[in-house]
Amino acid sequence: MRMDDDSLLQAPRGTRDFKPAEAGLRLAISEKLRCVFERYGFVPLETPVLEKMEVLSSKYAGGSEILKETYQLEDQGGRKLGLRYDLTVPLCRVVAGDASLPKPFKRYQIAPVFRDGPLKTGRYREFVQCDVDTIGAGGMIADAEILALVADAFNELGFKVVIKVNNRKFLNGLLDAAGVPENKRMNAILSLDKLEKIGVKGVTGELKEKGLSKQAGALLSLVAEKDVKILEKKVASAEGKEGLAELNELFDYLKAFGVKNFEFVPSLARGLAYYTGTVFEVYLVDSKLSSSVAAGGRYDDLVGLFAGSKDKVPAVGISFGLDVLFEAFKEAGKADASASTVRVFVIPFKETVKEAAGVCAELRKAGVNAAMDLMGRGVSKNIDFASKQGIPFVVFVGKQELEQGKVKLRDLKTGNEELVSVAQAVKLLKTSLFF
Amino acid sequence: MRMDDDSLLQAPRGTRDFKPAEAGLRLAISEKLRCVFERYGFVPLETPVLEKMEVLSSKYAGGSEILKETYQLEDQGGRKLGLRYDLTVPLCRVVAGDASLPKPFKRYQIAPVFRDGPLKTGRYREFVQCDVDTIGAGGMIADAEILALVADAFNELGFKVVIKVNNRKFLNGLLDAAGVPENKRMNAILSLDKLEKIGVKGVTGELKEKGLSKQAGALLSLVAEKDVKILEKKVASAEGKEGLAELNELFDYLKAFGVKNFEFVPSLARGLAYYTGTVFEVYLVDSKLSSSVAAGGRYDDLVGLFAGSKDKVPAVGISFGLDVLFEAFKEAGKADASASTVRVFVIPFKETVKEAAGVCAELRKAGVNAAMDLMGRGVSKNIDFASKQGIPFVVFVGKQELEQGKVKLRDLKTGNEELVSVAQAVKLLKTSLFF
Repeated sequence: MRMDDDSLLQAPRGTRDFKPAEAGLRLAISEKLRCVFERYGFVPLETPVLEKMEVLSSKYAGGSEILKETYQLEDQGGRKLGLRYDLTVPLCRVVAGDASLPKPFKRYQIAPVFRDGPLKTGRYREFVQCDVDTIGAGGMIADAEILALVADAFNELGFKVVIKVNNRKFLNGLLDAAGVPENKRMNAILSLDKLEKIGVKGVTGELKEKGLSKQAGALLSLVAEKDVKILEKKVASAEGKEGLAELNELFDYLKAFGVKNFEFVPSLARGLAYYTGTVFEVYLVDSKLSSSVAAGGRYDDLVGLFAGSKDKVPAVGISFGLDVLFEAFKEAGKADASASTVRVFVIPFKETVKEAAGVCAELRKAGVNAAMDLMGRGVSKNIDFASKQGIPFVVFVGKQELEQGKVKLRDLKTGNEELVSVAQAVKLLKTSLFF
Repeated sequence: MRMDDDSLLQAPRGTRDFKPAEAGLRLAISEKLRCVFERYGFVPLETPVLEKMEVLSSKYAGGSEILKETYQLEDQGGRKLGLRYDLTVPLCRVVAGDASLPKPFKRYQIAPVFRDGPLKTGRYREFVQCDVDTIGAGGMIADAEILALVADAFNELGFKVVIKVNNRKFLNGLLDAAGVPENKRMNAILSLDKLEKIGVKGVTGELKEKGLSKQAGALLSLVAEKDVKILEKKVASAEGKEGLAELNELFDYLKAFGVKNFEFVPSLARGLAYYTGTVFEVYLVDSKLSSSVAAGGRYDDLVGLFAGSKDKVPAVGISFGLDVLFEAFKEAGKADASASTVRVFVIPFKETVKEAAGVCAELRKAGVNAAMDLMGRGVSKNIDFASKQGIPFVVFVGKQELEQGKVKLRDLKTGNEELVSVAQAVKLLKTSLFF
């Protein structure tokens, strides 16, 4: 093994290192999300990266597709373990295992998940999900609250988004109305879900290949209709009517919460996952990023099945992708690689290193993020270092100044200097309008 | 597989779920540490959970003991991977692989690590480390800065601690002075390191078993001496003298930074790990917890060896154990399980659900953490729910009050109520001194 091999020193394929400017941006994004999550009354849950394979491979969980992408391992006791591929399955496990949790249980979790899948642009093997879920509340107000949270979160992050909304029960009603037989429902849904990507022609082609040429026309004209009043007349099945009623109720509550940036998309399905009602996907407006930045829906069966009970435990949730948000910030030029969390760099002269340490301690005690020279460098090299790190201010600790109880504070952008006491420096450094 | 099996629904052996009150406390601790880390000028680095086994098993890394405890797996491409067992090896990899990083490179990382080891009290297989390291600075001021950070961090967390300090070069000097042959050094160090746990008798016994009965007495009287001036006369080797000089310099800088709560412990070694100079361990004062709450030291060889270069890259760092800090908070009764991050719970009446959603939206817009009834419960059940969750205030949204443009705000502790506009409610909720 050669430790000087560059590729060896890189993170494993599909995983990444984030250097300070990037790591800081990722932290800032997740902190902002956490703040919004808490403002909406969600509380934190922490579950391990390691899960039992029996839990991850439960037929109620992610399904065979995701299981293929699950990292598996054994502990020394021969226990079969896997790395979690999402945060929903662990949530269901915790809720199913603890009847004492309050209902509704509104939790958030921001943590890495792992999928050993093919690598494409924007797809990684280790990535961070930011999830909020409301367990135990079956009414559409819970769904609306989560979409209000979404609208707020993107507003705070500074992005315009559109929230695409649909309902799986309603979609089943549309399939019934178009005459799609029940055994071809899943196949039809998989094709329909691609409508916005591959267009009417593409979907028609796929439906024909799946032996649904007769139904293709009716189905595509149904999903093109966005007027709920017209759809009410066309959807006949009880399930479809229930879905439409839920959509209407959801739209009413969205209005009550003041959410405007949503769009009813009757073809939206969110793949074959465990969704049972409302589904939603969030897209950036004015962005080249084609993937959704957040997505989720209602899954009323999953928790009950995990608990081994026949009672339904209603649940609705959304997952924000930290990695795609991070890309969005970079695309929007909002990622300031030169910004530092360090406010001031303390520069000693040869004979004042210990005094400089004292000044540094005083600044930190007052809550100022401060670094100091640890290399015994000369003054100009230290100024260079601070500039390159994006640190906005330096403090010179000179002997003469010390004798007057003062230090010299310099604004590295303007070059302006001021002779001040450390207490005065603190005040100036704490106001961003200094100089 | 039976999903109703309780033990199946528990996290894997050696890992844990943290419910909201506990997860919130853990978040609060790590946020406080992060704040102190940034105040000392450390910047974040994010590395993956997955590392290449070639990196983890490098002979320069954790050594064979830790390798036995490393979770190993293969990705679908047959790549041998492992779960990181610490945050130091990934840091060395990143620094060795990127010559463009500034020197000193002062980074922090707070993240889970994994060790498939035996389970004892306080030992887990997945646990969170909070690391700060300074790479590239060889002088004792860097070591002192990290110990100043430690003192500050525990002060902020509200714990009294003692920082035990020693130096590996000095310790080698002591071994030489006691006549311990170089091939028995490691063995002697392992026994000496246990002095505070097993006492003079225990260490003497171990040393005798290791064939060091002649040297035991001299060695134990040397490490009992804490007066540096006396030790200066007894330590003869160049390495020992260098270690003593470093200790003296370190103590001087600690004084400059205002750190007082440290203790010189000549027997301290920190096991056989890669330390080359200063070593330190931090213990709580007035606590039953016997393990250290933070520990670290100087490791000047590791990064250079990773880079495959003969040049030394000096480094010093410390790791705080989030899990032991969490235990310490619980032991000190500081873990308030009833506290909620939710400030107010909005309670509608049957006919005011949508208006209540609007009130909730207004409160959140003003930055107040607010939840509302999602279950269509009656008023008294809602009050019960809010109380049980530890939410301090409720707002009733009644029709009559709404007609006056007001809501009723109740303090659940005192029972006091006030009829106010939502704007006034925001003001009251934002001052903690309400009622």
